[in-house]
Amino acid sequence: MSNEIAKLATLNLKLPTPPQPVGNYNAVEQVGDLLFISGQLPIIDGKVMYQGQLGAALSVNEGVDAAALCALNILSQIDHHLGFDRLVKIVKVEGYISAITGFEQHANVLNGASGLLANVLGEKAGHIRTVVGCTSLPLNVPVEISVVAQCQ
Amino acid sequence: MSNEIAKLATLNLKLPTPPQPVGNYNAVEQVGDLLFISGQLPIIDGKVMYQGQLGAALSVNEGVDAAALCALNILSQIDHHLGFDRLVKIVKVEGYISAITGFEQHANVLNGASGLLANVLGEKAGHIRTVVGCTSLPLNVPVEISVVAQCQ
Amino acid sequence: MSNEIAKLATLNLKLPTPPQPVGNYNAVEQVGDLLFISGQLPIIDGKVMYQGQLGAALSVNEGVDAAALCALNILSQIDHHLGFDRLVKIVKVEGYISAITGFEQHANVLNGASGLLANVLGEKAGHIRTVVGCTSLPLNVPVEISVVAQCQ
Repeated sequence: MSNEIAKLATLNLKLPTPPQPVGNYNAVEQVGDLLFISGQLPIIDGKVMYQGQLGAALSVNEGVDAAALCALNILSQIDHHLGFDRLVKIVKVEGYISAITGFEQHANVLNGASGLLANVLGEKAGHIRTVVGCTSLPLNVPVEISVVAQCQ
Repeated sequence: MSNEIAKLATLNLKLPTPPQPVGNYNAVEQVGDLLFISGQLPIIDGKVMYQGQLGAALSVNEGVDAAALCALNILSQIDHHLGFDRLVKIVKVEGYISAITGFEQHANVLNGASGLLANVLGEKAGHIRTVVGCTSLPLNVPVEISVVAQCQ
Repeated sequence: MSNEIAKLATLNLKLPTPPQPVGNYNAVEQVGDLLFISGQLPIIDGKVMYQGQLGAALSVNEGVDAAALCALNILSQIDHHLGFDRLVKIVKVEGYISAITGFEQHANVLNGASGLLANVLGEKAGHIRTVVGCTSLPLNVPVEISVVAQCQ
């Protein structure tokens, strides 16, 4: 068992099945030592776990949980397509938050993802990030997260 | 004639003139084997072909067509600045959809771009992707698409 | 004094203190010759200088000024973490504009950033770009800008 899977277990978490792309595209693409991962949604086994907007139907805490689930799916894609032993670090986290005009706590929501990555990956969590507010996201989810990682 | 241009002809498509940047920036930038392409709009010869929002003035089918036209301009930039023979694969498609709150079919709209890339480029179409809903896009277009490609 | 700092002085500008990340992430990440920079806001010394949306509370001119300040913080991160002598060029500018539905002048707003980069960096300013409209951005700022740069 990898350190990362063991760490997830201590957090009472396990990796969900990596979500399949729903179109003519791929879950991950590698170019040299860069790994690009498709935008991940808060989904488990094909079931959407969170829907709605921040500042409307959803609380910041629910947004944080949704962001953590997106990050868990990112980890699942890394485990499935690359393997944690080949991960050098997370380079970039792109966070898209479905949020009303006037919402200001995007950073707090995305901390749900950054925090999980830090807890599981330690020094490898790295990452710069962007976080912005959207009118809507696919399937009415509140958070979508895409990642660029460095691999070996 | 390249395979890609021939394939476009069988789809009754031809490459539009690659749109010029409208400011102090460039249409493409290359770093090593990565090619970055500026966000492309559904424009032909400087004329905006689609305007309005998904979920409001525009149907999903119109959004699909607009996304395909953005992808056609991506192909035009690749042909003009790189040449299809130097394209290894499309790595990342960033899809921005002008859409109302409550719109859920972002993935279907962006499939208009991913499908065209697959039809024209075959195995080279590759790509992970992100797709999100925006309040508005430049010139009131419904779709903007930026691409990272691998080249040789 | 570097050419870039001297150029800023002729524009009556100086680099602000590089903003600190407010969470479990970093301001910059480097992979090979690529430098990724976290989304920068129009902030000076922790104080938010512009708030509100384009098309509502803010004029296009205020948006241009906010975009230029984001770009100034990008330059500050480059100076602090890399040094201008190691900068080869700006590769990608991702511009996120908080804007109402119906706003069409995203490109003009982002020209505030592209223009400053061109004025200060000259040939090194390079860059492709994306620009899109958001419902909201962190801390109610009107502009957020993230950059990918090439370094040596």
